[in-house]
Amino acid sequence: MAMELACLDLEGVLVPEVWINVAEKTGIEALRLTTRDVADYDELMRHRLKTLDQHGLKLPDIQAVIATMAPLPGAVEFLRWLDRNFQVVILSDTFYDFAAPLMAQLGWPVLFCHNLVTDASGRITDYQLRLANQKQAAVEAFHSLNLAVFAAGDSYNDTAMLAAADRGFLFRPPQKVIDEFPQFPVTQTFAELAEQFRAASSRPLSA
Amino acid sequence: MAMELACLDLEGVLVPEVWINVAEKTGIEALRLTTRDVADYDELMRHRLKTLDQHGLKLPDIQAVIATMAPLPGAVEFLRWLDRNFQVVILSDTFYDFAAPLMAQLGWPVLFCHNLVTDASGRITDYQLRLANQKQAAVEAFHSLNLAVFAAGDSYNDTAMLAAADRGFLFRPPQKVIDEFPQFPVTQTFAELAEQFRAASSRPLSA
Repeated sequence: MAMELACLDLEGVLVPEVWINVAEKTGIEALRLTTRDVADYDELMRHRLKTLDQHGLKLPDIQAVIATMAPLPGAVEFLRWLDRNFQVVILSDTFYDFAAPLMAQLGWPVLFCHNLVTDASGRITDYQLRLANQKQAAVEAFHSLNLAVFAAGDSYNDTAMLAAADRGFLFRPPQKVIDEFPQFPVTQTFAELAEQFRAASSRPLSA
Repeated sequence: MAMELACLDLEGVLVPEVWINVAEKTGIEALRLTTRDVADYDELMRHRLKTLDQHGLKLPDIQAVIATMAPLPGAVEFLRWLDRNFQVVILSDTFYDFAAPLMAQLGWPVLFCHNLVTDASGRITDYQLRLANQKQAAVEAFHSLNLAVFAAGDSYNDTAMLAAADRGFLFRPPQKVIDEFPQFPVTQTFAELAEQFRAASSRPLSA
């Protein structure tokens, strides 16, 4: 009987896309792009930091928007079910400085992500990837610990994680991700996603 | 700024020693030995399984005892503080079949441990280590993901984890462990343990 780990993406799976919310609250259309639109993460982040600078937006401005956000409907209940049945680690390309208020609402699940670099004024001067391809690397590290890994995500930066996992599922992905990665089952609701995890498990799970 | 992970032993740190409770409830003195007394884990487990067989005790009997146990006083509050300030993974040489009722009381933290092998009658026929030296291997895997690791445990089977971690702390260890491993700070209360984690962190932590 394998020890089974569930790895989840954060934005688009458990919480709304942070940058889309920032774009909507600030009215800056250039901030609407996400990993669902741009495959190159560094290109996307450089675009975001440049746009923030152009509009004079600093870390506290972004944090003020995030403080108004809540998990997606049903996400907390899904995560509680997953907690009871798997060991759960969230693998996200977000930043701790952004994630904390949402983590509090999710009950502080384990999160591996990245760091922002800010100056004394709160201007975001850079970002630090903790590790290149951290989602895939995490799955491989868990495999080295003899853990089975089932993973779910919604976008380009999740597909290496899904491919490395024993089973990988897409959750509400954009059509272009569905088209490019037909090997991953597509789920649209938490009930469907839970059903994929249940089918992947070698154990009887609780309700 | 490093991403910081806290790795905790389970029994003796967050919950009482399961086997000592079983010994007390069943009156079988031979089940009182733990990793605090016997350095060789396989020798200890063979002794336990043989003793259970001699007394006709099966998995449901042990589970009935565990169902009456609760986390150590202050453990839940300490774990909630740790959750808010670190990514937390519990590394234990217990078994999922034993741990579940205690995990529920702790709020289902992430747990890496081992599996028991039972037959149809519930007799525990064997145990499966998920991995030899799993605690040390987990710390090394987390290091490979560029995470800083601070670890706490109470007994022999924790010392390799404490040595591999960036900082390792003993919590209420027996005197012989203190004597053999003078390099690790000794803590006796959750306040003292929290203070060690706070001092190890490169970040300002919440209360």
